[in-house]
Amino acid sequence: MAMRKAVRETMRKERDSLGTVQVPADCLWGAQTERSRRNFRIGLDTGIGRMPLALIHAYAIEKSAAARANCALGVLAPEKCALIERVCDEILAGEHDDQFPLAVWQTGSGTQTNMNLNEVIANRACQLEGGSLVDGGERPLHPNDDVNRSQSSNDSFPTAMHIAAYRMLSGRLVPALENLSHALAARAEVFADTVKIGRTHMMDATPLTLGQEFSGYARQVQMGLEALRNSFTHLAELPIGGTAVGTGINAPAGFAARAVEYIAADTGLPFVEAQNRFAGLAAHDALVEAHAALKQLAVALMKVAGDIRLLASGPRCSIGEIRLPANEPGSSIMPGKVNPTQCEAMTMVCARVIGNDAGMAVAGMSGQLELNVFKPMMIATLLESAELLADAAGSFEQHCVSGIEADSERIRAHLDNSLMLVTALNPHIGYDRAAHIAKLAHEQGITLREAAVASGEVSAEDFDRWVQPQDMLGR
Amino acid sequence: MAMRKAVRETMRKERDSLGTVQVPADCLWGAQTERSRRNFRIGLDTGIGRMPLALIHAYAIEKSAAARANCALGVLAPEKCALIERVCDEILAGEHDDQFPLAVWQTGSGTQTNMNLNEVIANRACQLEGGSLVDGGERPLHPNDDVNRSQSSNDSFPTAMHIAAYRMLSGRLVPALENLSHALAARAEVFADTVKIGRTHMMDATPLTLGQEFSGYARQVQMGLEALRNSFTHLAELPIGGTAVGTGINAPAGFAARAVEYIAADTGLPFVEAQNRFAGLAAHDALVEAHAALKQLAVALMKVAGDIRLLASGPRCSIGEIRLPANEPGSSIMPGKVNPTQCEAMTMVCARVIGNDAGMAVAGMSGQLELNVFKPMMIATLLESAELLADAAGSFEQHCVSGIEADSERIRAHLDNSLMLVTALNPHIGYDRAAHIAKLAHEQGITLREAAVASGEVSAEDFDRWVQPQDMLGR
Amino acid sequence: MAMRKAVRETMRKERDSLGTVQVPADCLWGAQTERSRRNFRIGLDTGIGRMPLALIHAYAIEKSAAARANCALGVLAPEKCALIERVCDEILAGEHDDQFPLAVWQTGSGTQTNMNLNEVIANRACQLEGGSLVDGGERPLHPNDDVNRSQSSNDSFPTAMHIAAYRMLSGRLVPALENLSHALAARAEVFADTVKIGRTHMMDATPLTLGQEFSGYARQVQMGLEALRNSFTHLAELPIGGTAVGTGINAPAGFAARAVEYIAADTGLPFVEAQNRFAGLAAHDALVEAHAALKQLAVALMKVAGDIRLLASGPRCSIGEIRLPANEPGSSIMPGKVNPTQCEAMTMVCARVIGNDAGMAVAGMSGQLELNVFKPMMIATLLESAELLADAAGSFEQHCVSGIEADSERIRAHLDNSLMLVTALNPHIGYDRAAHIAKLAHEQGITLREAAVASGEVSAEDFDRWVQPQDMLGR
Amino acid sequence: MAMRKAVRETMRKERDSLGTVQVPADCLWGAQTERSRRNFRIGLDTGIGRMPLALIHAYAIEKSAAARANCALGVLAPEKCALIERVCDEILAGEHDDQFPLAVWQTGSGTQTNMNLNEVIANRACQLEGGSLVDGGERPLHPNDDVNRSQSSNDSFPTAMHIAAYRMLSGRLVPALENLSHALAARAEVFADTVKIGRTHMMDATPLTLGQEFSGYARQVQMGLEALRNSFTHLAELPIGGTAVGTGINAPAGFAARAVEYIAADTGLPFVEAQNRFAGLAAHDALVEAHAALKQLAVALMKVAGDIRLLASGPRCSIGEIRLPANEPGSSIMPGKVNPTQCEAMTMVCARVIGNDAGMAVAGMSGQLELNVFKPMMIATLLESAELLADAAGSFEQHCVSGIEADSERIRAHLDNSLMLVTALNPHIGYDRAAHIAKLAHEQGITLREAAVASGEVSAEDFDRWVQPQDMLGR
Repeated sequence: MAMRKAVRETMRKERDSLGTVQVPADCLWGAQTERSRRNFRIGLDTGIGRMPLALIHAYAIEKSAAARANCALGVLAPEKCALIERVCDEILAGEHDDQFPLAVWQTGSGTQTNMNLNEVIANRACQLEGGSLVDGGERPLHPNDDVNRSQSSNDSFPTAMHIAAYRMLSGRLVPALENLSHALAARAEVFADTVKIGRTHMMDATPLTLGQEFSGYARQVQMGLEALRNSFTHLAELPIGGTAVGTGINAPAGFAARAVEYIAADTGLPFVEAQNRFAGLAAHDALVEAHAALKQLAVALMKVAGDIRLLASGPRCSIGEIRLPANEPGSSIMPGKVNPTQCEAMTMVCARVIGNDAGMAVAGMSGQLELNVFKPMMIATLLESAELLADAAGSFEQHCVSGIEADSERIRAHLDNSLMLVTALNPHIGYDRAAHIAKLAHEQGITLREAAVASGEVSAEDFDRWVQPQDMLGR
Repeated sequence: MAMRKAVRETMRKERDSLGTVQVPADCLWGAQTERSRRNFRIGLDTGIGRMPLALIHAYAIEKSAAARANCALGVLAPEKCALIERVCDEILAGEHDDQFPLAVWQTGSGTQTNMNLNEVIANRACQLEGGSLVDGGERPLHPNDDVNRSQSSNDSFPTAMHIAAYRMLSGRLVPALENLSHALAARAEVFADTVKIGRTHMMDATPLTLGQEFSGYARQVQMGLEALRNSFTHLAELPIGGTAVGTGINAPAGFAARAVEYIAADTGLPFVEAQNRFAGLAAHDALVEAHAALKQLAVALMKVAGDIRLLASGPRCSIGEIRLPANEPGSSIMPGKVNPTQCEAMTMVCARVIGNDAGMAVAGMSGQLELNVFKPMMIATLLESAELLADAAGSFEQHCVSGIEADSERIRAHLDNSLMLVTALNPHIGYDRAAHIAKLAHEQGITLREAAVASGEVSAEDFDRWVQPQDMLGR
Repeated sequence: MAMRKAVRETMRKERDSLGTVQVPADCLWGAQTERSRRNFRIGLDTGIGRMPLALIHAYAIEKSAAARANCALGVLAPEKCALIERVCDEILAGEHDDQFPLAVWQTGSGTQTNMNLNEVIANRACQLEGGSLVDGGERPLHPNDDVNRSQSSNDSFPTAMHIAAYRMLSGRLVPALENLSHALAARAEVFADTVKIGRTHMMDATPLTLGQEFSGYARQVQMGLEALRNSFTHLAELPIGGTAVGTGINAPAGFAARAVEYIAADTGLPFVEAQNRFAGLAAHDALVEAHAALKQLAVALMKVAGDIRLLASGPRCSIGEIRLPANEPGSSIMPGKVNPTQCEAMTMVCARVIGNDAGMAVAGMSGQLELNVFKPMMIATLLESAELLADAAGSFEQHCVSGIEADSERIRAHLDNSLMLVTALNPHIGYDRAAHIAKLAHEQGITLREAAVASGEVSAEDFDRWVQPQDMLGR
Repeated sequence: MAMRKAVRETMRKERDSLGTVQVPADCLWGAQTERSRRNFRIGLDTGIGRMPLALIHAYAIEKSAAARANCALGVLAPEKCALIERVCDEILAGEHDDQFPLAVWQTGSGTQTNMNLNEVIANRACQLEGGSLVDGGERPLHPNDDVNRSQSSNDSFPTAMHIAAYRMLSGRLVPALENLSHALAARAEVFADTVKIGRTHMMDATPLTLGQEFSGYARQVQMGLEALRNSFTHLAELPIGGTAVGTGINAPAGFAARAVEYIAADTGLPFVEAQNRFAGLAAHDALVEAHAALKQLAVALMKVAGDIRLLASGPRCSIGEIRLPANEPGSSIMPGKVNPTQCEAMTMVCARVIGNDAGMAVAGMSGQLELNVFKPMMIATLLESAELLADAAGSFEQHCVSGIEADSERIRAHLDNSLMLVTALNPHIGYDRAAHIAKLAHEQGITLREAAVASGEVSAEDFDRWVQPQDMLGR
């Protein structure tokens, strides 16, 4: 609101190769950002709208590294380099977050966000040098010739995509999932001796421990993490140095190596030069691959959260073998109801991530010749999925998993009541006779032991010796 | 096996505009079919391999109608027309099913299957006229100039797609779904007075009848059917007459109107000329739309089958409120186990159809300029989804839904045990006090009535008057 | 930032059935909102985070109508009703947008957002009555007993979902698509006489007009609109009155009819009572259906925008038959480059919407028994898709389609150069001889006319009479 | 047909724990197979119908290994073991392929296919021993007690899934993709010096070599292969030994280790025991992960095949820079047309595989408690995708990629005509002045050199020295 008013009140002129444009006097961006801001008013009310700050910050890392590489190679003056570095540090510190107003839904190469960076850096540098953006005087940096030197959007934007993705995945998602996996494993320990009935096809089956169930959940999360980490190898490849089409036109020899070295040092992440820059600009299979791991995690967590909901269902008229923390009243109309709300938040996130994976495939497959022009959508989608999974994993762990308790009484009652302990008779009397006993118990509504004895196949003593749930738990 | 041997033993020569090709002497196809058969050996072992016969038969309908339209407009001799009609009738009767050996995975316009039709018709006509395919003599019909007259693959193949889809959907899927919907509605009638506990968030909630639950299932299937029928409007539009690019080059005036009229008469379906043939060749939004209805049905049936599995889960250690027919032993190791196998077949089909819908979107969006070249994949996918849903619906209805019985004893026990009947107290004592009573009962493991009285908020008499499950079922 | 500080400085106590909670003193929400705000910190940085305001506003419409229905049926005092109405009007006017801080990723029934509405209405009513939220005094409305009267989240949230979806789709998306469709049709008119070469399989084919191409685009958008409008029938069904499980417990007779009548009047949309409320709470097939139409539109627009990009490609080394408006410099490194940026924004949106459709299927299929608990994710996803398509359609129409111009010179050069005009010879000399001529021209790099004459099959005069592009455009 | 007649004519009785069933006298299967054959008539006409033979054969490997492990551990007599081994060898040799008639769409645990194996092995053993299946006499093996000993469907079916998947992926898909990757790399070598115009956003850009373009394609396939190989680690984990719920009830200590050792030896693949058998039965994340790699390959190949189509488009009115082999007449109506049919088959396969990936996610996420009951659908889908990709890769390589030729004349003409060589001027005169020159050339339809000189910014000599395509290709 405030800004719009300002727009009308005080403007200044900015120019690019197409001519001059009026921009709000107090903003740092220039003509190309302003053109995009006007021409792409898409999706700014709900869902993904603005280019994620995680991408902007990653881009600042790239711009700073590029400037230093240019300087080291003698194609950018040290004073210019210092200015660029200084503004990039400010951007990374979050001081200019409101200067990146563009939508995700812009040019598919992200050129307008690249220019947004270039313009903000050039204009802020002017301010730092004591210059004015309004008087039209000489500016110390040219957005294209200096800030963008040795770069094109086509290589620098996917470089920023990889940086942003790697930072988000390794810095935020991996720790959250490790925590969740550990919390699940901790529950597995706590429940290691809680023998309970198993269920296959949602039908009563042979026993296992509640701890064994939870060990499976922990393993699924670990498998997802392993898949995710596998994807980091390709994510570590940065196409910087490819410039316009991958050949590296207008970038000096050695530029990519230097820039990647600086980016790796600045982020502490093992970035390397892309094995093939043509693929690095024209396709984003590395992001498709990383998102597939997110999808796998969503598939796993959908199962885990769904199971926990099932085990907690009831409390009286369904399984009800575990109890979840009661974090809030569950119903606006049913007093005293407690619902598995953290499971629900998690499963909604999983559904979203699974959908996002289909969107990534569509975008990833649609590059043409030297460029994939679905870049902003791809990185925004990946960051959304990663953030949602990270936050949901944290919330689920903290507000649900860690507080899960077993309802030993119900667990024991179910176990005693089950017919599938009959399986333990197979090695002694064979499948067919055992089936007969189970059927008898089911039809007459009696216990397995009663049916076994009534069948004449098994003595009460043998039954008691052979049918011991705690002996059916594997080695 | 037999055929491969024959190939080596007796061959004959066929020619097309690229030259001559050896084909098995006893087959009816010609040079272009043979080229495709050799060049596209894809996917013939599992899954979708061969072009579906439903498409081949639909194409025969199109070829016959086109011949009659050509004849009526004076551009095809009556004798030639009669020959084409006669062979098409044989094809429709299933007499030449083995003469269409091509894969779905061929040229994306389906040209090779069009030529397969054209060649088989021309060659079979030669036989019918007493000619020999081997001697190289004059043949009564030219595959392109006669059988394909006034047509291109680009308009005739999508015409056949619409015919095949409409026939499959209206002739096979709709009846199967109507049956299923009726069977669900019939169960709703049978269970109309079976009051039971409701479950929201998988947690015990206020009561409803088992019949009301099943009425919801029937309604979901009906909604899917309504969506499916809506899609028939666009499916009824046939692009025939557009020939190569939609303009109708080389087709006489009036051709499309005649051909569509014949196709409508032959199939008894309300086919009309496409409103816009350019869209009809270059895009297949009508199939995308029809498949979306299949996806909606899959979404609905996943819920229905999943619920039936949940309600039947147990029999002793889970909900267990209904019993499914025991059609087969459920487990190879657990004697006496009965599983919801029909639910599982149905839900596997639903997962497949939901995946197919994503594939349809990818194919549907990928047309370029005057042609979409994902035609064979799109029709094969739609036919697969339709057939799977139709068969699964039939199987589910016959082997599961019709035999479902209520376990009144467990249903009553759950109802008596539930805490959420407390909701009936809201209008009398307010949400907060009612919540207190529910909490009390839950924590102390007592009944709601005991907790109500203990709380001092409600007398035993009021409780009995206010808390009556059968009064909580709506009007 | 400011708010967080306030939180620490001034708080007040709020209570719900679980106890008391500290909330920021100047906020209007209460205990349950605050619990959710703390327990569900998910996805608030990027992508879909907060519950969309379109849903909040729709919920205010529902709350107001419910109050009036309760009042008319004598279960809510007129003063209370008037208060509720007044606050709902304020909410709809956007005066309290900052009072709905909850995430989409909360309980899957949307209960917490329902309570957010109930609490804000109750607390704001207290202010309007001159009361203080801080002093703990009597408040005129109870969130559950008054504002939520005759409602549950389980019926009111999906009612708000349908209202929000219908308003967004009919009020924002349909007009944007109509405009785009008309703009495409207008281009079709302008280009009606521009004869050009067709392309099938991306290979030169027989001619058509540029206007015919654009007529196909307009038709695809219209087909999508027709599919979208078909979905409105189910979207118009509101499950209000079902309360907790669909039975309508605690809602007076006639409540649903009244409430729906008011909602229809307030929105001007043809809302009706749901045919089956059990399905209306437990499944959201109506939203799955509506989103399928959005997916179909995305499939169509992907083709349209992709084609326009292809036709504009070049300008010198590819097709280059049309020119798009040059809205901004296209490249940060290649001077003078102009790119199809609006096409790219559109196709990124389409990829996103196609992905969202898969997410909707996963969520839609995952309801269990009496409730689908993916409600917030489903409505947020649908609103995102609708908003993106609406905005992208508007942007594409305004900044691209309306300014498209034909490059007549290139179009004519391509037409003259093409070999596929040979198709016009088929009726005169047959397919095989025509193929020979085309091959000759291709191999020798000569014109079709030269090859025709050289072949001896066609005289120059016949060629000129038979091969006239403008005669190949259909009737 | 023949079999159905036989069914009516000669039947024999088979029995299982539910009673007796009539089966065709000459078949090898038993009662449970027959029950499934009758109860699950789903999808047998089109698409995926029958359980894939690759799964059946893998199951025979598992059954043989299990028998030997049982024998080694003393729980199965050596004679019985020898019989089982012998029949499994026959099955693997393809001698009984027609004895496995069941549909994919059966019980979700694959129990019926497990019993199909168990029954065929038991019955065939009876034959081998000289016994008759008809006379009802003693049989040497019991399907459950002997053939299925120490196993459940719940662990043996997923073990067979992993075996089948690993064999198909490593034995058939990897080699096909390696070949394709090498063919692409070979083309990259051939075209290493072919300098051509680049295209970004489908608009003319700076130059690169055709070889560089193809190197990007080869790299994409290699990245997909790397992702695929990463997935083998989890695929190598076999859950055998878990029996009914993962605990290993009724399997002797050491069984899993032995069985896995035998399977690894028999297949030559590095199989190991599953780290966690509970996850191995209840979820199939390993298959979700492997299929994600197939999806990534589909995404990559969609781009590669689409690019090749674009580069070959024309031949006269579009890009036309490469020529594809003319394998067949392209059009039924346009004589002499040659189409990129192998690209189309490939892209259809890719669309299918991308759709399949969404189906895998839905199935993978839907396990409940101790079992995922989407097993048959998941393995059938994965095998379909793998087979389609393998065959399409082979076909594409053999019939398309290997025969691609460059059209040097068109390539040179495009290069000379392009405006984006202007980029080479940036380091000399800056972005803004260079943009001015490009604009001038575009607007006046003159060459870049002419515009450069006309602008007064660059002398003809400097232009010729600075603007050399071969100098713009990177290092």
